[in-house]
Amino acid sequence: MSTRSRARAARGADGGGAESALSTATIYDVAKRAGVSPATVSRVYNGVGVSPAKTEAVQRAARELKFVPNSTARNLRTGSANAIALVIPDIENPYFTETARGIEDVASAAGYSVMLCNSDGDIAKESTYLGIAASAHMAGVILAAAGDDTDVSALRAAGRPIIAVDRSAGGGVDSVLMANRAAGYAATIDLLDAGYRRVACMVGGMAIETSRERAQGWRDAMEERLGSADPALLYPTTFHLEGGRVSIDALLAAENPPDGFVAGNNLIGMGAIQRLAELGTPPPAYGMAVIGSLPYTIISPSSVSIVRLPAREMGMTAARMLLDRLAGDDAPPRTVVLGGELLPRLDS
Amino acid sequence: MSTRSRARAARGADGGGAESALSTATIYDVAKRAGVSPATVSRVYNGVGVSPAKTEAVQRAARELKFVPNSTARNLRTGSANAIALVIPDIENPYFTETARGIEDVASAAGYSVMLCNSDGDIAKESTYLGIAASAHMAGVILAAAGDDTDVSALRAAGRPIIAVDRSAGGGVDSVLMANRAAGYAATIDLLDAGYRRVACMVGGMAIETSRERAQGWRDAMEERLGSADPALLYPTTFHLEGGRVSIDALLAAENPPDGFVAGNNLIGMGAIQRLAELGTPPPAYGMAVIGSLPYTIISPSSVSIVRLPAREMGMTAARMLLDRLAGDDAPPRTVVLGGELLPRLDS
Repeated sequence: MSTRSRARAARGADGGGAESALSTATIYDVAKRAGVSPATVSRVYNGVGVSPAKTEAVQRAARELKFVPNSTARNLRTGSANAIALVIPDIENPYFTETARGIEDVASAAGYSVMLCNSDGDIAKESTYLGIAASAHMAGVILAAAGDDTDVSALRAAGRPIIAVDRSAGGGVDSVLMANRAAGYAATIDLLDAGYRRVACMVGGMAIETSRERAQGWRDAMEERLGSADPALLYPTTFHLEGGRVSIDALLAAENPPDGFVAGNNLIGMGAIQRLAELGTPPPAYGMAVIGSLPYTIISPSSVSIVRLPAREMGMTAARMLLDRLAGDDAPPRTVVLGGELLPRLDS
Repeated sequence: MSTRSRARAARGADGGGAESALSTATIYDVAKRAGVSPATVSRVYNGVGVSPAKTEAVQRAARELKFVPNSTARNLRTGSANAIALVIPDIENPYFTETARGIEDVASAAGYSVMLCNSDGDIAKESTYLGIAASAHMAGVILAAAGDDTDVSALRAAGRPIIAVDRSAGGGVDSVLMANRAAGYAATIDLLDAGYRRVACMVGGMAIETSRERAQGWRDAMEERLGSADPALLYPTTFHLEGGRVSIDALLAAENPPDGFVAGNNLIGMGAIQRLAELGTPPPAYGMAVIGSLPYTIISPSSVSIVRLPAREMGMTAARMLLDRLAGDDAPPRTVVLGGELLPRLDS
């Protein structure tokens, strides 16, 4: 190992790695290049009167040298070392921005910034973001995995703590997950209790852990109450609004259509309710149970069962676990599972 | 200027600065530290069978040296140099996540990643994020400023292109803005045309440009049609759901309450409609016009006027401008203003 790489590894180990990415140009370098005194450079940056020509010369030299004035130098030097990357599959899903809110509140109180990265559920995009987090020497990563093929081995080899949220990210990674199977079960039982019988289940792609587990909860309930779960009633789509709309049309066009629907996440639920309302048959004409909240709704939807998932708490818990790891906690990996909560139905 | 700092400035100038932040440990360094051959290290990383003891030794050495295996090394090296920071004041506001969607679509097609930073409308947090963007050698920044005191001078001095969205960020910065005054005017006129007379205007804090301009549009309309705009009808709150709820209560408790409301953004609108519905007097009992969209609503709110603001287009335009600047465009700063669109009202 060369002396140079050893010195860098040592700097990296004490968390000061980000500093080496900075221009080291000083006020003296800027003064020399601009042909003015260091005091003049200082005056420009302190907003004290300097002639336009000299101001322009100092600014040009500073730009060319990528000089960073003192007032923000501390931020710049410690910057990404105090940042946490949060990689999520859908930035437009309020469930994940609520998770981000929880992470930020805890991280911010501890002096950490959070940078949010949207993988769009795409493994290649996700891998790019994980690479950026490592290359920018961020403190750690909180990850809602794009799917089963998510690969965190390089990040782990680079010594960054990782916390998985919502979906596990392989063995050996700390995780904060929802009780998804129980949520699917509770949503389905609530519809069966209300008298619906052919209850369909709409989830995201089956390469996503939360889809499989919520579907398994639906299956548990159908088998327990009706003796079997008709596979034709399980509809994998996407965890988006459009997925809910499309599923309703497809399921209602079937030979033996359902009389109730479990929506596997908030967006599927909103799309499904929208579509049922357009067709003139909003709940309770068909039963509807949604896993996750329905944020930003103007009118409380009556006759819709909601199994609330505590997204903000998930974020807060994950951030606390990451802070523990950053503080040196080297206990074996752990998994925290948060329970959903069936809200009282607002019957119309 | 020292040789060392000159070399760094040169590396920074050709965009390769991020590389200097990386551990330069090689497969040979790892092999030496682990006491195995380089071929063994390679086998570990290619998943070929190696004894558990040797695998463990290699992984430990790699962790200690922060060694990055080849498969992801390219990502890590070019990582943050191909990243754009997007700094917004509220990550839970769908208006900004829609903007982010537009930015990502354009940036991603050009090979750039987007890292989203939530300033919470706090100047100190915003400054930290701008510092991280510079220290991590990100390609550029797109910024929806926290307020009038936003300071981008350090970033500009560091030679990073900046595009302001939604709110301008001082002179000399490229901007993509909404026609806010026209939007405030159109929303107010629509309510006056519908027969409402005492039309109140709820906006965010007056330190935010969009608040002032939308309020000015309301004032224009009131003065044009009624001869004057009663200052008691202008209610500055926060651009959040709670702001809308609180404003309704405060305005309705006034001695001479309004009969209609212009909501200065989507969240104020949603909170205000929620609160009016709770009070048993949803629109059209009171007039309601919302600037911005009402996303994720399950039931199309009837009797609500909406002046849609093209958030996704704003993001796409900003990303294209940033890409132009990165490609060397050095034309003078420009401002693009996007028009809102009054949607047809859905009268009940």
